[in-house]
Amino acid sequence: MSEMEKLAQYFTRFPGIGTRQARRFVYFLLASNPAYVKDLSARMLSLLEKSAQCADCRRYFEHTNGGRDTTRVCDMCADTASDPHTLVVVEKDADLLSFKKSGGSPGRFFVLGALIPLSEIKGAVVAPRVKELKGRIEKAVASGLKEVLLALSATPEGDHTALELRILLEPLQKKHGFTVSALGRGLSTGSELEYADGETIKSAFENRKTQ
Amino acid sequence: MSEMEKLAQYFTRFPGIGTRQARRFVYFLLASNPAYVKDLSARMLSLLEKSAQCADCRRYFEHTNGGRDTTRVCDMCADTASDPHTLVVVEKDADLLSFKKSGGSPGRFFVLGALIPLSEIKGAVVAPRVKELKGRIEKAVASGLKEVLLALSATPEGDHTALELRILLEPLQKKHGFTVSALGRGLSTGSELEYADGETIKSAFENRKTQ
Amino acid sequence: MSEMEKLAQYFTRFPGIGTRQARRFVYFLLASNPAYVKDLSARMLSLLEKSAQCADCRRYFEHTNGGRDTTRVCDMCADTASDPHTLVVVEKDADLLSFKKSGGSPGRFFVLGALIPLSEIKGAVVAPRVKELKGRIEKAVASGLKEVLLALSATPEGDHTALELRILLEPLQKKHGFTVSALGRGLSTGSELEYADGETIKSAFENRKTQ
Amino acid sequence: MSEMEKLAQYFTRFPGIGTRQARRFVYFLLASNPAYVKDLSARMLSLLEKSAQCADCRRYFEHTNGGRDTTRVCDMCADTASDPHTLVVVEKDADLLSFKKSGGSPGRFFVLGALIPLSEIKGAVVAPRVKELKGRIEKAVASGLKEVLLALSATPEGDHTALELRILLEPLQKKHGFTVSALGRGLSTGSELEYADGETIKSAFENRKTQ
Repeated sequence: MSEMEKLAQYFTRFPGIGTRQARRFVYFLLASNPAYVKDLSARMLSLLEKSAQCADCRRYFEHTNGGRDTTRVCDMCADTASDPHTLVVVEKDADLLSFKKSGGSPGRFFVLGALIPLSEIKGAVVAPRVKELKGRIEKAVASGLKEVLLALSATPEGDHTALELRILLEPLQKKHGFTVSALGRGLSTGSELEYADGETIKSAFENRKTQ
Repeated sequence: MSEMEKLAQYFTRFPGIGTRQARRFVYFLLASNPAYVKDLSARMLSLLEKSAQCADCRRYFEHTNGGRDTTRVCDMCADTASDPHTLVVVEKDADLLSFKKSGGSPGRFFVLGALIPLSEIKGAVVAPRVKELKGRIEKAVASGLKEVLLALSATPEGDHTALELRILLEPLQKKHGFTVSALGRGLSTGSELEYADGETIKSAFENRKTQ
Repeated sequence: MSEMEKLAQYFTRFPGIGTRQARRFVYFLLASNPAYVKDLSARMLSLLEKSAQCADCRRYFEHTNGGRDTTRVCDMCADTASDPHTLVVVEKDADLLSFKKSGGSPGRFFVLGALIPLSEIKGAVVAPRVKELKGRIEKAVASGLKEVLLALSATPEGDHTALELRILLEPLQKKHGFTVSALGRGLSTGSELEYADGETIKSAFENRKTQ
Repeated sequence: MSEMEKLAQYFTRFPGIGTRQARRFVYFLLASNPAYVKDLSARMLSLLEKSAQCADCRRYFEHTNGGRDTTRVCDMCADTASDPHTLVVVEKDADLLSFKKSGGSPGRFFVLGALIPLSEIKGAVVAPRVKELKGRIEKAVASGLKEVLLALSATPEGDHTALELRILLEPLQKKHGFTVSALGRGLSTGSELEYADGETIKSAFENRKTQ
């Protein structure tokens, strides 16, 4: 295989990138200013060095001397002003930032890293950071945890993950007495009533507000 | 203009049908069994004769001797078992049926017929059945109305209509003391957290449930 | 089943119309001016009466006293100025009109009515107007036919139909000595070289022109 | 701006990549095996070192000791078996490979690198490698050039570029007597007759074949 093809294969692992677009990336780099390619290459290495994974929420954050360390705690988790009663469990880093930005919860966070695939059934869960989540919860209990909010997408994978997590967290829940909650369903901004399913309409009705 | 073109023009008024598809409809009818075309033509006339518009909720319903009468009341509105405290205002007949099917509300309904266009501002509202809605509310007050729920799509037109209706219904609301509510926002079935806007996430958080 | 549902079922037979849109058509008619519905219903019947199918090309055309007669010849086929050497075989009426409008061929036409489904293999062809096509060719031979052009879509069904027709017309072709041709491949207006397949590029190369 | 944001900005320059996907790339790299990121970074640098731009056709090709040299000639251009009479002008490297793979032309190639934007009008052309194309043609004339084929997409930009190039190459053409041609139009594989425009149908008719 040629050098160009080899590099293209690396790009096919990028999320959402197929063979054709991967090749276009290679041609794009070939036609680019060499200085841009060198900078891009260097920035990738510096990302490795200057990022760390938060020991508490598991999100990636920047750290002058990171080296992908996993013993440090990010600024959000270190913020003592955040509400210690609620732990918001999300799928990925981007979800955490969206949640934070919405002002939805003043609580603390945990990033699963992935959803549990539909093929995974109870007891056999190997996928995301379940062990780490349990550790995080134990630590949060000490600070007064009252609620674990499963803030997952309203998709089959999201629902399945929520169901599995409820089972996996049950022993901890019984031991410590916190509640496990899920995001409310309703009409998303932009959605039309005609295309909404029964569950969505029912929840939207139950959650109606007088403004 | 030819006969075929004239018929095609009639079809272009159908919702979602452009010139090209309208012509395909004509060719489809030409190639169809004449008995099918005659039946279709007859069924359209019988729809006129056997349907009536409900004097209360304004939806269309079937009536043996309808003639598009607007003085009769449909079976849903005549059902004395429905909750008289809530009046659910929807845009169209299909929304009413979806709502009813979801089991969302045991209340009564009113079909606006259309949303108020974004170009219509307060005072100048000519569009949907506002006068009829006011009449319906006055009648409902007599049966114990406590809440008018604006069950509209979470789109700019839906939001605008809700805003205008709140203004238009204010005098009635002050006079009779009912509340005006709106459907709750949240994650619709199928929506991903990453693509949700701040308002949706915030509402989904506020409406979270322990199940 | 209700009257509305029955009418909706009639609309689901329309090309490209599913259950949901069929129901929207019914609600649209219910909310329309009764005069519009009556006119539409009447125009459908008059389409039956005032249209005929051309005995030569099999397309539908208007005729004051049509009654879906199939013994009359349309104005195009009656036009003695058209080139008698070429018979252009198309799938449907709309294709014939597009072809005519493009000025592509001054010849005569025949409408198959449908493509031969991929599941139909030689000998078993029941689908479109093959017998009528053979009759049309016999008649055209008498006027000097030299070429039968299969002007079909460049899709799997179109290619399959062309292949089957070549087999089915072979005896006639041997007897009368006309050629059977197909439309040239090349870049369609709007298509990008990067997404074109090998056959298209090769044909586009062979058919290149000096402006 | 954070390190992550900076890297994301680099990715937004990639073809077809917006802000959101650029961020997903960064998170993807953060969650990847560091060895993969290091390899990817290294391969980008080696692409710079091991690639050269062909002095004749201007495409990028691999060269053990490339360093993005522009004085070397690629294997295709060095191949003396290729037809010296035809020079095929394409927009980009991927088009050249598609063309070569189709077996469409045994001739020689030239990669423009870009199309001339619709806003560029004659005399003001700054965009692609026009000067280099002229040089390539002068060299090809010495080997017996008879035809310059503008093998561009059938889009407005492609048509515009062909028009501009015809004007720009006119002096050379008059001096040396070669012809300038363009790819033939017709039905692309997959396109339906009903949606084809008049020019496409007309060309498909003119380019019809007896097989």
